[in-house]
Amino acid sequence: MSPESQPLFDAVKRHIAENVEPIAEEFYRLGEGRADRWSWAPGQLELLETAKNKAKQSGLWNFFLPDSEIGKGLSNLDYAYIAAELGKQPLASETLNCSAPDTGNMEVLERVGTEAQKERWLKPLLNGEIRSCYAMTEPGVASSDAKNISTRAVLENGEWVINGEKYYISGAGDSRCKIMICMVKTNPDGPASGQQSQILVPMDTPGVQVLGPMTVFGHDHAPRGHMHIKLENVRVPEENILLGVGRGFEISQVRLGPGRIHHCMRAIGQAEKALDLMVKRATSRVAFGKPIIQLGKNLETVSRARIEIEAMRLMVLKAARAMDVLGNREARVWVSMVKAMVPEKVATIIDQAMQIHGATGVSQWSPLSAMYTDVRHLRFADGPDEVHHMVVGRAELERH
Amino acid sequence: MSPESQPLFDAVKRHIAENVEPIAEEFYRLGEGRADRWSWAPGQLELLETAKNKAKQSGLWNFFLPDSEIGKGLSNLDYAYIAAELGKQPLASETLNCSAPDTGNMEVLERVGTEAQKERWLKPLLNGEIRSCYAMTEPGVASSDAKNISTRAVLENGEWVINGEKYYISGAGDSRCKIMICMVKTNPDGPASGQQSQILVPMDTPGVQVLGPMTVFGHDHAPRGHMHIKLENVRVPEENILLGVGRGFEISQVRLGPGRIHHCMRAIGQAEKALDLMVKRATSRVAFGKPIIQLGKNLETVSRARIEIEAMRLMVLKAARAMDVLGNREARVWVSMVKAMVPEKVATIIDQAMQIHGATGVSQWSPLSAMYTDVRHLRFADGPDEVHHMVVGRAELERH
Amino acid sequence: MSPESQPLFDAVKRHIAENVEPIAEEFYRLGEGRADRWSWAPGQLELLETAKNKAKQSGLWNFFLPDSEIGKGLSNLDYAYIAAELGKQPLASETLNCSAPDTGNMEVLERVGTEAQKERWLKPLLNGEIRSCYAMTEPGVASSDAKNISTRAVLENGEWVINGEKYYISGAGDSRCKIMICMVKTNPDGPASGQQSQILVPMDTPGVQVLGPMTVFGHDHAPRGHMHIKLENVRVPEENILLGVGRGFEISQVRLGPGRIHHCMRAIGQAEKALDLMVKRATSRVAFGKPIIQLGKNLETVSRARIEIEAMRLMVLKAARAMDVLGNREARVWVSMVKAMVPEKVATIIDQAMQIHGATGVSQWSPLSAMYTDVRHLRFADGPDEVHHMVVGRAELERH
Amino acid sequence: MSPESQPLFDAVKRHIAENVEPIAEEFYRLGEGRADRWSWAPGQLELLETAKNKAKQSGLWNFFLPDSEIGKGLSNLDYAYIAAELGKQPLASETLNCSAPDTGNMEVLERVGTEAQKERWLKPLLNGEIRSCYAMTEPGVASSDAKNISTRAVLENGEWVINGEKYYISGAGDSRCKIMICMVKTNPDGPASGQQSQILVPMDTPGVQVLGPMTVFGHDHAPRGHMHIKLENVRVPEENILLGVGRGFEISQVRLGPGRIHHCMRAIGQAEKALDLMVKRATSRVAFGKPIIQLGKNLETVSRARIEIEAMRLMVLKAARAMDVLGNREARVWVSMVKAMVPEKVATIIDQAMQIHGATGVSQWSPLSAMYTDVRHLRFADGPDEVHHMVVGRAELERH
Repeated sequence: MSPESQPLFDAVKRHIAENVEPIAEEFYRLGEGRADRWSWAPGQLELLETAKNKAKQSGLWNFFLPDSEIGKGLSNLDYAYIAAELGKQPLASETLNCSAPDTGNMEVLERVGTEAQKERWLKPLLNGEIRSCYAMTEPGVASSDAKNISTRAVLENGEWVINGEKYYISGAGDSRCKIMICMVKTNPDGPASGQQSQILVPMDTPGVQVLGPMTVFGHDHAPRGHMHIKLENVRVPEENILLGVGRGFEISQVRLGPGRIHHCMRAIGQAEKALDLMVKRATSRVAFGKPIIQLGKNLETVSRARIEIEAMRLMVLKAARAMDVLGNREARVWVSMVKAMVPEKVATIIDQAMQIHGATGVSQWSPLSAMYTDVRHLRFADGPDEVHHMVVGRAELERH
Repeated sequence: MSPESQPLFDAVKRHIAENVEPIAEEFYRLGEGRADRWSWAPGQLELLETAKNKAKQSGLWNFFLPDSEIGKGLSNLDYAYIAAELGKQPLASETLNCSAPDTGNMEVLERVGTEAQKERWLKPLLNGEIRSCYAMTEPGVASSDAKNISTRAVLENGEWVINGEKYYISGAGDSRCKIMICMVKTNPDGPASGQQSQILVPMDTPGVQVLGPMTVFGHDHAPRGHMHIKLENVRVPEENILLGVGRGFEISQVRLGPGRIHHCMRAIGQAEKALDLMVKRATSRVAFGKPIIQLGKNLETVSRARIEIEAMRLMVLKAARAMDVLGNREARVWVSMVKAMVPEKVATIIDQAMQIHGATGVSQWSPLSAMYTDVRHLRFADGPDEVHHMVVGRAELERH
Repeated sequence: MSPESQPLFDAVKRHIAENVEPIAEEFYRLGEGRADRWSWAPGQLELLETAKNKAKQSGLWNFFLPDSEIGKGLSNLDYAYIAAELGKQPLASETLNCSAPDTGNMEVLERVGTEAQKERWLKPLLNGEIRSCYAMTEPGVASSDAKNISTRAVLENGEWVINGEKYYISGAGDSRCKIMICMVKTNPDGPASGQQSQILVPMDTPGVQVLGPMTVFGHDHAPRGHMHIKLENVRVPEENILLGVGRGFEISQVRLGPGRIHHCMRAIGQAEKALDLMVKRATSRVAFGKPIIQLGKNLETVSRARIEIEAMRLMVLKAARAMDVLGNREARVWVSMVKAMVPEKVATIIDQAMQIHGATGVSQWSPLSAMYTDVRHLRFADGPDEVHHMVVGRAELERH
Repeated sequence: MSPESQPLFDAVKRHIAENVEPIAEEFYRLGEGRADRWSWAPGQLELLETAKNKAKQSGLWNFFLPDSEIGKGLSNLDYAYIAAELGKQPLASETLNCSAPDTGNMEVLERVGTEAQKERWLKPLLNGEIRSCYAMTEPGVASSDAKNISTRAVLENGEWVINGEKYYISGAGDSRCKIMICMVKTNPDGPASGQQSQILVPMDTPGVQVLGPMTVFGHDHAPRGHMHIKLENVRVPEENILLGVGRGFEISQVRLGPGRIHHCMRAIGQAEKALDLMVKRATSRVAFGKPIIQLGKNLETVSRARIEIEAMRLMVLKAARAMDVLGNREARVWVSMVKAMVPEKVATIIDQAMQIHGATGVSQWSPLSAMYTDVRHLRFADGPDEVHHMVVGRAELERH
């Protein structure tokens, strides 16, 4: 961590301890047992807003934007350390206006948006007044190959007419989500990397149908959700396109690096927590006359978890540093390395923690199974492991 | 399979196809969206009863009892083949009166029950009029070491007074569950293997408090459930003890072998289904210009899954045969071998199938995540993998 | 095992105990420290011949030929049990005239040879007077894809003129090796599976240059060797072709099944031996105050080894049975399953045994490292694991 | 790397390129095919001496000593970068007087030796006039638990009388090896960590019997060797003890850290080489119509190798840094982490490289099998993986 970012890091930790931790229990309690799972309970948003205002007043706001005049100009490396802290308290990011996918969307708007687009959407996002979503994945095709994207946008009379289906659109169930950045195919006959575009689609545009939540191991993540969305003759003005027709891939390069780093840092935080729970359980339970930790391979499991956690952390920090030094594009192999490495290994560590807990490990009495499903999902999100291994493998071939 | 059991096997398959498959959809539809998740919807039990009566009339009833005058005297090997079929349709077992944990409970009552116990509990169980549960696991101790069981039963004035806490008691949420076989500590100062007893506890006995369901990856399995139960000054007559004071372990030996074999056969059925889904998906989706099956390690993953499935099947059949030839006690090492081997490998195969499906694999559109959580839970149920490896490892040492 | 083959099985065990075990030590001692590593020491072959004669006199001769009027008509299943015994004593096979690659070569000659070919080469092989080799693998191409075979044979004036290079030709260093079956390309422009032929090449034909041994982890296996051979304008009569021009692949189908089964059975025998050594060491050494077996994951390693060994054995027996029932061609998927499964798993078990032995495990004081290199080599011989997984994976796709 | 050490790093690379690479071929050629495998061929040592003198003249001499007035005061971190270079050319270390086990022995003498001991042994070692060995491991006990050391030293009339057996004593076969540091038990009745001492034993002392080499997968590493040594009534003066009676463990703490780091750095260099060979082979060979790299999991294997190599390198550098900052004692958990992590993962990478090479991978035409056996041996040397996992696991427990 650079000396200059230490005060920010400390301030974030203080904010979480003083303004977020104290409201978390009430926040979640208010949300329980609601008939309408897809709205916020009275009082929930007020709690959040109070914490957001405190953050704003302390200047802890929008610092996620790297190298920007709006943000703090934090390096990816310095932000990675902060991300690890954010990962420990699920509400923390939102109170600092740095939740996914808003961060990526704001970064895209800030870099490639027109003045009008910034005024209309970036401003309320930077103020924390609305939220947003990013619609990439489709149910009907293997969208890990982005060239497969089949949602079509056709220009008619100065309007884009969009038809298609998207799913696992995170945050689109949130009543505050007002804008979607939608990856569409505009130039089906163009060169492979020039067929796609990204278009701004307000959520209240006629034809945008939120069909329902996609679940992960049965969980619907209400009231935020990973939504299944149908776009049927959705019409938006021609100027809602980002950067330009056929430049959808180019925009993707901008957004994906930092998000993946943060996902990985958060996942490592979960591995730390799983290891902590594993050790606590294994030292406090007795079977066959000994603490469980002394039985079989358990101590070696602990050792291997520690070693892999340290290795993953160093790799993610190195990838963050690569992004700072080389830029997102050149650092993409490092990003793929950690994205292919971290979720798989963290899932294994959480699974081992569950095994050491016995049945309690998969029950509601332990956070482990929810952590597991989260991380398991991460092995698909932002590209499945296999695609990242392909990127890394090919880069290795190019060296020769 | 022996030639003699072929007609029974065929009749079971016919019964499933003719009497169970056609009701499954309606059965589950009736159960959806109920305010009271812990009762059966009107009409559900009627559907089940009709199918049960058809099975009874065809003589397909209680055949699970091995070497018994009541059952068909099926060998474990022959039953294993049938179990594989039962595993393919979740309702099938109940329509044939051979669901867990009733099968184990009936077997125990039949072998060690007094005439009065048989009349009172075995008879209605054999008739399919009531259901039962088996209370072994405890939340407060590592009950994989059965010596740790802490629920106490003390004899007072001709009554056992029971105090303790049990959890993950499968089926105890079912309104038809009337009787519990409860593992308790009666002789805390006796020799290690003589401290426990098993006692019949009617579910409506005052002091039996069903606190709620234990979930598995968030699922509550309503309205059957894996329940959390508190026993507070529960009083049952002295004669409710099974076999005799301090003979709890002895009874366990009787019950556990066949149940584990059946669990494993069913798990292999799930692996087959996962492999089938994996191949279907991988051959029908295209990415990077090729069917997914031609990408990366996918074809090898299919091959390894097929090899492991065949190996597991042969092992389970061999273990069933060992039980027939050597008896449950001598065959226990074979049973531990398959119990340690199968759930772990099946979980891996299902996980790989999920990965090949992309995000759909963990969603409500695919049965895979539910199958995964089932099999993951099985790595704890009836003894965690680690305990079975201990049994196998020690047997290996004894050979030398 | 079938009841009929039991007497043969017993006789083979007796022969090994009475006629082979007693000569083994002297046989190897005679071979030590020779200046000319590529000849047999005086006395060695005499010892072998004596044991061979005893086997012949007892009728234990050439029984490897399945379903043949010459052999005993042993099923592959019955032979598999015998193969496991042969695997325990390295000299045993040769004394019974059933060493690789002679068995495969004799089987091919017996099935597809002309009368003249049988008279000239099969007869002395069946009598144990000469030995043979099989030249398939080439250094210059990936010969796991048999279509890559580049050694050319051109017909000129009634003679095949052969040019090319072969390596890892097992047994070709043995001074008694008189005949090579050589896989060559005769029809480079034909359809993919009709380009190859197999031709009989006497080892003393001018132009057959044995360049030296290929080593395996540094071992040269003198005086038998896995030889590197150059064929330079080697001329043999037109009638030395087997079965017909362009039918080389067809012949391969005949030969490979049983050999692979036997390799796998032998490998399982080595895994048993490694497990045995592992247990002996782990129970007799003490570290940190306990026998090593009680430390860390060692007992679980023993358990997993036992489970995998039993699973492999059942798989190999099932594959042998499949060959008996379905024929070599139809059973080839089963053969590929065991060939892909067994060497890899056995190598892991031997590696774990080495680890438990500490440095002694890789030293000359233990047979483990030699066993390891053998089995490691087996992961390439007769097709690398990857090719067998491809066969199994494709067969799985065809089912759908 | 620190800016100050960059010139040294560059000078070392230059020395290797100019003075070592050019002599390597001749050096090894001179050593081939010697009747007496345990002496140096005429001319070999002369080549080495010339290169050593060049290094001395350039001031590239004894820089391995960290924080010493004799050496360069290089940090462990800076030395780690140099070690990676040394690992690429087997002769390099010796020409710079920094081969194992001399480095460790010199470091011990420098830190705990008396003036007389330094004069007699350290001086010629620092001058590169003699070589040395370190005798710790014993064949008769599990010496991974150092308390098991059974070689006894008894004080009689001002002399230590030593009896015992040691094996895998690296470098003891070299005719220039003149001094052994021998770990012995002097106080069998003392507290566990105070029973051992380390004593200087000149190799020519009567009773020191070098019985022969211990092999690794059959290799004897002549003329250096890993020797098997018997000590029979070996008598050395009382003042040959190092540091003091019962302080053997204390000395071990000093020596082992840096050596392990260097082993690991060198192993990573081998992994890089294996990955390089893997890619070269997989891109230049064709099977089934494609370069092998495009078949099956090969590209993913390359990707995983790259990821693990980068992770290992970061971990080793971090461990080196920990030693610089925390001292050898406090950093020992980091050292155990990398010692448990690196050799196991590198062995896997080399094994995969062999598999991609086909049979050539295990042959004399590829360095891979020799690299494999080296790294496999490293999983025992300086403590087996299991002991290092124990250290790491226990440290994790202490945190809680």
